[in-house]
Amino acid sequence: MDRRSFLKNSALGGSAAAATALAAPAYAQGNRTLTMVSTWGRGLAGVHDAAQYCADAITALTDGQLTVDLKAGGELVGAFESFDAVSSGQADMYHGVDYYFLGQHPALSFFSQVPFGMTFQEYANWNYHGGGRELRDELYEIFGLKSFSAGNTGPQSGGWFNREINAPEDFQGLKFRMPGQGGQVLGKLGASVQNLPGSEVYQALSSGAIDGTEWIGPWADEKAGFQEITKIYYTAGFHEPGPNLSLTVNLGVFDGLTPAQQGIIEQVAGACNIWNMAQFMAHNSAALQRLQAGGVRVMEFPDSVWDAFGAASKEVIEEPLGDDLYKRCYESFTASLASSAGWASRSEGAFLAQRNRVLG
Amino acid sequence: MDRRSFLKNSALGGSAAAATALAAPAYAQGNRTLTMVSTWGRGLAGVHDAAQYCADAITALTDGQLTVDLKAGGELVGAFESFDAVSSGQADMYHGVDYYFLGQHPALSFFSQVPFGMTFQEYANWNYHGGGRELRDELYEIFGLKSFSAGNTGPQSGGWFNREINAPEDFQGLKFRMPGQGGQVLGKLGASVQNLPGSEVYQALSSGAIDGTEWIGPWADEKAGFQEITKIYYTAGFHEPGPNLSLTVNLGVFDGLTPAQQGIIEQVAGACNIWNMAQFMAHNSAALQRLQAGGVRVMEFPDSVWDAFGAASKEVIEEPLGDDLYKRCYESFTASLASSAGWASRSEGAFLAQRNRVLG
Repeated sequence: MDRRSFLKNSALGGSAAAATALAAPAYAQGNRTLTMVSTWGRGLAGVHDAAQYCADAITALTDGQLTVDLKAGGELVGAFESFDAVSSGQADMYHGVDYYFLGQHPALSFFSQVPFGMTFQEYANWNYHGGGRELRDELYEIFGLKSFSAGNTGPQSGGWFNREINAPEDFQGLKFRMPGQGGQVLGKLGASVQNLPGSEVYQALSSGAIDGTEWIGPWADEKAGFQEITKIYYTAGFHEPGPNLSLTVNLGVFDGLTPAQQGIIEQVAGACNIWNMAQFMAHNSAALQRLQAGGVRVMEFPDSVWDAFGAASKEVIEEPLGDDLYKRCYESFTASLASSAGWASRSEGAFLAQRNRVLG
Repeated sequence: MDRRSFLKNSALGGSAAAATALAAPAYAQGNRTLTMVSTWGRGLAGVHDAAQYCADAITALTDGQLTVDLKAGGELVGAFESFDAVSSGQADMYHGVDYYFLGQHPALSFFSQVPFGMTFQEYANWNYHGGGRELRDELYEIFGLKSFSAGNTGPQSGGWFNREINAPEDFQGLKFRMPGQGGQVLGKLGASVQNLPGSEVYQALSSGAIDGTEWIGPWADEKAGFQEITKIYYTAGFHEPGPNLSLTVNLGVFDGLTPAQQGIIEQVAGACNIWNMAQFMAHNSAALQRLQAGGVRVMEFPDSVWDAFGAASKEVIEEPLGDDLYKRCYESFTASLASSAGWASRSEGAFLAQRNRVLG
């Protein structure tokens, strides 16, 4: 698929190109309110917090020049309409996770999450120093957007199930909520996969519309209340080892800001990235203990299931390689991951193994 | 030791208290140059880059209000004089690593590095969400300073030696460069430990004034040229699994800035933190390959040596527990580490083990 076919197939069509072509407006020096929409329901633990962090910090740091007004998912547009709303100029920016929008372009997976892909630190490496940023700019410009990593949940849990998973065959016919390429992987294992925004998952699981779901990790999952519905919880997962949340701005709006304002958005996104990763890390251990105390059984997938995840992930990741931009993202991403993972294993991996051994 | 005895013992004495007591000056709205000194020689790979990142970003984001003029170590004051220079008001801020200044207060180790301590992600967790920031403010305020994490090298290498280390006894009489509590640990193993700034290490190793040194990791070590002097290199180390670099501002200067300017310094420091960690990660694998191609032998300490590191580290870390603030930092740090490490092992650790197993 090339640029043209993506634009043609996209719901927004020519409007993205029109947004890109706008000349820089004259409001750069004046005070202004920017509307931020979001893929998160108001109050969703961690993810809505990251959106609020960005909105508040941009407002504070621009000292009255910019006021960011955060509309959570559903308040101005639906969670899954965020990308189109900002691309078309209906809103100025969104906070979200971009594997919700793979229908716009499959390469968005590289800037949100690829199964068996990068952790938080590996993503930062690729993004800042391994060519990721340049490819990201090229991709989002197609849709009249400028995008930054602005939050990360850390490794996501395998999820909640209404029965144990003992073999790959146990996914056959399972109605499961998982977005992005991870969901496509479960589809290859025979699951019936649904892509629901976070705010709708509890109701779907509760009503039996789905048999299981992944969401984020112990803290956010506990807040969502899934432990009230089922007690079978798999912690480590293959699908999202370090998903990038994004702060994505309409390119015409971004180009109309002053360099200082643009810099503030970029630095706030970077600071939010680490603050948000740490927020999940800070709460997950205690939440997991509470879940276990409440009767939740904490499980790990057997190796045979991990092997099946691996084989299907390879298929899913390689399918869009006919697209030139996807292929270049894939090659850059894969090379960066291979390089950083080698050193990480020898340094942080070796240290953690010794720390665990020596300190217990 | 209490606040008073620290101030009395410090080279700066009452001047820190005087700096703290200054009323907020009237320059908040005007254009102004701030002088940043540094513990890094100009051009030192990664660490000087982090200082420059902060200087440039604060200048750019404040849009002409603040211009940060970076003086590398030795240009205005010596590397190890940075803390005193900013505490006394001779300079406005410094970028550095604060285990160079344990003579001022032993609790500075918790905000730079503790042996067998926190990784980059664990530090972010404690700093932002586990009580670290509040304790940091209390500690630095003693010296009239306000400090932020603003860079991280990732796990540092064990270092360069002129002979193999096969048992703890091999450290006896070894003249080795290692700062901070890590250096105190090697002292307990019988080493003669020196604390030299980075810019002086090559000469010391080359002349035989020291038998070995740690510096950072393959990329920065290669730039420093240690492979020209010895070929014995240990990668994983116990001493600095994720050292925090700091951006530390004179408190009177900081209090005189506008809230937006203060926010810009804080957000830039956060963004630099992840950018800099990733910078080291991006370069270390390739550098290690080049070092190996050039004849460097890449080694790992045997378990008996790690055990000796562990026992001596416990002694060193527990020695200052008679000081109330040190003790409170220790307790908060230890509780946060225990909590985050448990989840990290179950989530990122379990994922990485499966990724390595499945993908090879």
